[in-house]
Amino acid sequence: MKVDRSPIQVMAEEKKAVKNIPPKGDDLSEWYTQVCLKAQLVDYAPVRGCIVLRPYGFAIWDRIREEFDKRFKATGHSNAYFPLFIPESLLAREADHVEGFAPEVAWVTEGGGEKLTERLAIRPTSEVVIGMMYAKWIQSHRDLPVLINQWANVVRWEKATRPFLRTLEFLWQEGHTAHASQAEAAEEVQRMLEVYREVAEDELGLPVIKGRKSANERFAGALSTFAIEAMMPDGKALQAGTSHELGQNFAKAYDISFTDVDEQRKHVWTTSWGVSWRILGGLIMTHGDDRGLVLPPQIAPTQVVVVPIIRKGDESVPPAARACYDALRGEFRAHLDDRIEQTAPWKFNEWEMRGVPVRVEIGPRDVADGKVTIARRDTLEKSSVPASEAAAHIGRILAEIQRELRARALAERERRTTTATTREQFVEALKRQAGFVLAPWCDRTECELQIKAETSAVSRVIVADAAPGETCAYDGSPAKVKAYFARSY
Amino acid sequence: MKVDRSPIQVMAEEKKAVKNIPPKGDDLSEWYTQVCLKAQLVDYAPVRGCIVLRPYGFAIWDRIREEFDKRFKATGHSNAYFPLFIPESLLAREADHVEGFAPEVAWVTEGGGEKLTERLAIRPTSEVVIGMMYAKWIQSHRDLPVLINQWANVVRWEKATRPFLRTLEFLWQEGHTAHASQAEAAEEVQRMLEVYREVAEDELGLPVIKGRKSANERFAGALSTFAIEAMMPDGKALQAGTSHELGQNFAKAYDISFTDVDEQRKHVWTTSWGVSWRILGGLIMTHGDDRGLVLPPQIAPTQVVVVPIIRKGDESVPPAARACYDALRGEFRAHLDDRIEQTAPWKFNEWEMRGVPVRVEIGPRDVADGKVTIARRDTLEKSSVPASEAAAHIGRILAEIQRELRARALAERERRTTTATTREQFVEALKRQAGFVLAPWCDRTECELQIKAETSAVSRVIVADAAPGETCAYDGSPAKVKAYFARSY
Repeated sequence: MKVDRSPIQVMAEEKKAVKNIPPKGDDLSEWYTQVCLKAQLVDYAPVRGCIVLRPYGFAIWDRIREEFDKRFKATGHSNAYFPLFIPESLLAREADHVEGFAPEVAWVTEGGGEKLTERLAIRPTSEVVIGMMYAKWIQSHRDLPVLINQWANVVRWEKATRPFLRTLEFLWQEGHTAHASQAEAAEEVQRMLEVYREVAEDELGLPVIKGRKSANERFAGALSTFAIEAMMPDGKALQAGTSHELGQNFAKAYDISFTDVDEQRKHVWTTSWGVSWRILGGLIMTHGDDRGLVLPPQIAPTQVVVVPIIRKGDESVPPAARACYDALRGEFRAHLDDRIEQTAPWKFNEWEMRGVPVRVEIGPRDVADGKVTIARRDTLEKSSVPASEAAAHIGRILAEIQRELRARALAERERRTTTATTREQFVEALKRQAGFVLAPWCDRTECELQIKAETSAVSRVIVADAAPGETCAYDGSPAKVKAYFARSY
Repeated sequence: MKVDRSPIQVMAEEKKAVKNIPPKGDDLSEWYTQVCLKAQLVDYAPVRGCIVLRPYGFAIWDRIREEFDKRFKATGHSNAYFPLFIPESLLAREADHVEGFAPEVAWVTEGGGEKLTERLAIRPTSEVVIGMMYAKWIQSHRDLPVLINQWANVVRWEKATRPFLRTLEFLWQEGHTAHASQAEAAEEVQRMLEVYREVAEDELGLPVIKGRKSANERFAGALSTFAIEAMMPDGKALQAGTSHELGQNFAKAYDISFTDVDEQRKHVWTTSWGVSWRILGGLIMTHGDDRGLVLPPQIAPTQVVVVPIIRKGDESVPPAARACYDALRGEFRAHLDDRIEQTAPWKFNEWEMRGVPVRVEIGPRDVADGKVTIARRDTLEKSSVPASEAAAHIGRILAEIQRELRARALAERERRTTTATTREQFVEALKRQAGFVLAPWCDRTECELQIKAETSAVSRVIVADAAPGETCAYDGSPAKVKAYFARSY
């Protein structure tokens, strides 16, 4: 136990710990990877492109999952679980879908010591296997709507991978619903997109733009894809959730039909919508700073950590820290860090790296004064308050942090959003990766492919119709829509 | 809406619904499959040996999962998530382990449109990939113990499959821990086995026998395997959870070592323990009856269903049913079945099939009398109680059902447990599938293989040492232990 280091030793140690990661502004990519590893969110697995979600990362994902799940249930959805495998012949029935996903599929070709007669795809998404079941379950209009969600692992064979943002195997939820009419299906798609926006903004403090995807960026097999898009600090957009109107494409391919009230046999209208652990990547990049992760209080597995500062010969601190923790833990997700192997400064660094929103420090002086020191993770401000008022004070601070993280992220996004009406403005802003460029656009795939070739950017979401007379910012043809463009993850 | 059928119509309908499944006593296997399908727990998937866990089945599994999960957390474990894939070369490092699992592995050989240079196993269990990570994470005695659990899907290439009991892909939890000493690891193994027993008995009402597995029945790569074994109504045992002392086998194969307080580098001692959705199969078989599923109240997603009995011209019932539901739902997991397309008898049958512990019936007569009729699912008894006392009455009934289901299952197991000291008794009881046969045994693999060849039964668990002088019930050699034998699922 080395608890009585000199201030110089402590400072040197603190510096070293902070220096573990590069400044966020210098190299976001390296900063991001280091934070993911050093905050012990993930580790690289001994399989290319796969990560291990460590207990702390899992706890954050679990909190995010809970926020989504309770809203899925509140909007009438139930959870279920469908198989990992999809026989190749079934996957092939919806032409656009298989064309879109086949290049990313991992195939099981051997099982139980034998070559299989038919390859099995590991689900890249589950429209197919769920559609097959809906065809069995749905017979009458009375069976509709079917509103099911699944939390599952899926596999997509990606070349370049990064923790959370792009991994071969990832965890996600996929909602799959079937409806009697197109209008109902369209309503569901917007309802779930709004749930996504709400969780992203209200819980994760991640401001997003809702809109429709262009034809080129649409989900394979969908009529329309809608998405929430967030802006990262390097000016690249992150797609954080998608919601698809599948029309009757899957219903026809997999024969999902019902007898309507008019006794006619009709195909259902289906939707699907998904959010993956990718949104956690967006959370890390958006709020983190040079000391590591910064978690919004609503999502933080630990909202408050109490760290006793032990001095040789003093015995007042441990019971005071325990009493403080006992007073807080009924109200907050609190943790008492009473490890004796580590120094207090070491612990401060560790909890800062892990993004815990509020730290309570209690030293002999605090105990003598009947006070505690409260440190905010986001601003790093410290305040000294009477121990008896700690809970009320922390409650206020947590609410403030939640509000301010979102406000700062929003201001940052506004700063990184420009508008363009000329090709020069448009191309220049995208080439220097300035962030979102909002522009009138012709909404033609050929135009989008040219934009991509020249700027590496594509449309992220279409948010409105163009005004009469507006012209496409890129090619000068008549504009149909207003869309956000950006390079993206 | 056909709400005013004649009593004869109603009876005919009721009979038909009940006749949907064969009597449990006639053909347990067919009864089981029918209950799984008709209670909408599962459906067969369009992939051999795989099932879909439908919303109702998922809700039950989720309740079971919660009961385990809270106890895992209370005993210091955290959840994490490890990859689905294990490269072949890694799997091969622990010789016994790979030998045991290789025949059941599904192999991914193609991904992203290319043949892989190395086959990837889909995890049949995760000792290997988790062991690799522990080797990275564990350096010092301060890093120990590591106590992690994972809820995941795993795949084992089984030939004959049955819902929950044996499926190619299944959902389970697998705990993996690393310790500084053998004693600590052994303690962990018993602690988790006791958690399994507690959830099985206290929550699922499933009496189990705890004990050690024989060498022949041990987990591939373990020093010792412990299990909880339940007895099914057809006299076959069901292994409902296992907990393994892995010794230093995996630590040596994957080099998981630490610097101890004495500065020596040492290999850790690891454990693993798992429960799958198989235990849900045990629950169904144990408590179900000729009308379908019977759920213990602690596990039932819906504990109480309120069914209004609507008569033409009466308007008193719907508001009374709603008021009753409102009075109950704060206290119980309650559901109001106010569908208008179905008759009350049809609903009674459906909720009985789904095993909801208590049904509240409210008809015009009940409303006029200020009463409700309460029907118990397990005994099918009905009682009429003042509406104001419904909640208290239901609370008592639910506790009684929970207690009595377990007591009945225990009595049934006792009835299906015999002891044998001679070969004749031993072989006869096993051949007619009488249930558990408790016998002194020599604990030799050769003897067990002979028993298996003759009776199709094996030892299920070893529960004690033999008394001095006792001889093996099967081969007459000196007995070492007392063990339960049975045929099994």
